[in-house]
Amino acid sequence: MRVGIDIGGTKTAAVVVDRNGTVLHEVKQPTGYGAEEVISTVTQVTRQLADRAGCPVSDFRSIGIGIPGAVNTATGRVDHAVNLGLVEFELGAESARLLGSPVVVENDVNAAAVGAYRLVNGGVGGGAAGGDSGPASTGSLAYLNLGTGLAAGIVLDGSLWRGATGVAGEIGHIPVDPSGVICTCGQRGCLETISSGSGISRQWPTDSSSPVHDMMRAATEGDEVAVRIRDMLFDGVATGVRLLVLSVDVQSVVLGGGVTSLGQPLLDGVRGVLRTWSSSSPFLESLRLDERIRYIPDSFSAAAIGAALIGEKTHD
Amino acid sequence: MRVGIDIGGTKTAAVVVDRNGTVLHEVKQPTGYGAEEVISTVTQVTRQLADRAGCPVSDFRSIGIGIPGAVNTATGRVDHAVNLGLVEFELGAESARLLGSPVVVENDVNAAAVGAYRLVNGGVGGGAAGGDSGPASTGSLAYLNLGTGLAAGIVLDGSLWRGATGVAGEIGHIPVDPSGVICTCGQRGCLETISSGSGISRQWPTDSSSPVHDMMRAATEGDEVAVRIRDMLFDGVATGVRLLVLSVDVQSVVLGGGVTSLGQPLLDGVRGVLRTWSSSSPFLESLRLDERIRYIPDSFSAAAIGAALIGEKTHD
Repeated sequence: MRVGIDIGGTKTAAVVVDRNGTVLHEVKQPTGYGAEEVISTVTQVTRQLADRAGCPVSDFRSIGIGIPGAVNTATGRVDHAVNLGLVEFELGAESARLLGSPVVVENDVNAAAVGAYRLVNGGVGGGAAGGDSGPASTGSLAYLNLGTGLAAGIVLDGSLWRGATGVAGEIGHIPVDPSGVICTCGQRGCLETISSGSGISRQWPTDSSSPVHDMMRAATEGDEVAVRIRDMLFDGVATGVRLLVLSVDVQSVVLGGGVTSLGQPLLDGVRGVLRTWSSSSPFLESLRLDERIRYIPDSFSAAAIGAALIGEKTHD
Repeated sequence: MRVGIDIGGTKTAAVVVDRNGTVLHEVKQPTGYGAEEVISTVTQVTRQLADRAGCPVSDFRSIGIGIPGAVNTATGRVDHAVNLGLVEFELGAESARLLGSPVVVENDVNAAAVGAYRLVNGGVGGGAAGGDSGPASTGSLAYLNLGTGLAAGIVLDGSLWRGATGVAGEIGHIPVDPSGVICTCGQRGCLETISSGSGISRQWPTDSSSPVHDMMRAATEGDEVAVRIRDMLFDGVATGVRLLVLSVDVQSVVLGGGVTSLGQPLLDGVRGVLRTWSSSSPFLESLRLDERIRYIPDSFSAAAIGAALIGEKTHD
């Protein structure tokens, strides 16, 4: 049995998977802030999983951790995970010391890409990803995370592709709007400023607990500002899909992250943009971009399952 | 010994390499137009190489062909190579029949990427690629072709990455200029409309045999239109480099194709743009984009050598 833990900005999800990648147990709890609290969260969920599984923690052959931030995957050090208050923290070594099992640490979007790959190829979770068309399985895939930020994890021929310097899939920082706002990265009009949770919150200030859903509701009711923000969101996601296909040519682009809780209307909107583009470009038409998109069901803990699978590859 | 042939729109270059990838002989001749002429070119250069090598053609263990067009690499069929007048032509099978050796056919930009990879990693040609900085070797590389069109070939962990549907690296058809012209692909303001030979010829009509050099000369002399075209060229190439790094995160981007005959001024111009961007973005700065660029010396037949190497991988 192997453990996978997805440390999110607000909540942490953890799973135990068996040798076939089937999820045996799953627990969730709020994530603490800062090094001590994050470590405490990791040890707590792992012990809860051991209780559920009726075994000691030492029976877990590996523990994989996905975390939103810059990770040195060779050492398990988190260089910075701003939302969790971590800077140069030896999360892997510290977790391994406290739990007595081998630990691997990976960026959460990359972990989710590995989980999504397994889902799409039918290895776990008992079914294929959502979406009403597209191929049944895939050798290459991008997991496009529409969360607080926007970034993709890339799986090629079944293996995670991190790139030469670990920034593969950081398409959120490709500028797409010359008249856009300055991004946190310093460039103007990055994709992330348009099609991420933070981008929408900035454009649609509200007291609602979900600015994305609030904006979408207003757009549906015809609010002109909301309609513009919504259309830019769709256009931006479509732009991300086109970028991923024309650079990496992944078979599937799986959408995930908080913004995808919009569900079918998001998928329909993005597909609509892609079809409009294709209608004036036989070349784009031939790529069938609209058929390459899928989304992950809310119930599937892609990053936790992916982290468990990465642990398996690293500690065979 | 293995043969590699680069069938260009106007001229064909062909090499014989030994088992170490060292070029033993090289020949060049004008390329014919249409199926019969192209096949005739292939057989002629192969027989010339056999003469040079003092052996029968049957001594060549494989013949690799790079060609500008859409290729079915599994069958060796050229689906379309517009500039050569080929449509659904069984180039691989026909060449193999006439020459009696196994033949592989690959898109020329992909073939050049494989050749560039070998060059950068010191396997052939007796030296590293040009450029005054950057790492000495590289596990991943994009060959960015600035020819009549604009496209990249991608090598990851030493292997050519064609993508799920063979369009990996087709970044020339990513729109970057919302106010640009309609591209041959049907979209507006594609990268190719700005930073390719055809894009420059369209913007700078001239009787000169080299519109690119003519434009560059005029820009140096202060012609305002030329300066604008030149600056857009630099900006577009820099945009391509940023795209390739933020999507695939290749260690090196090797520039090739006719436009790179501009030499050092092109490299300096593109690096200047990248440095300007980095000066306002610590994130981009950390990627050291300017140090990732290299160019291929004119004397290095990247696509022919790459085609020979692909033949080696396919017919061991």
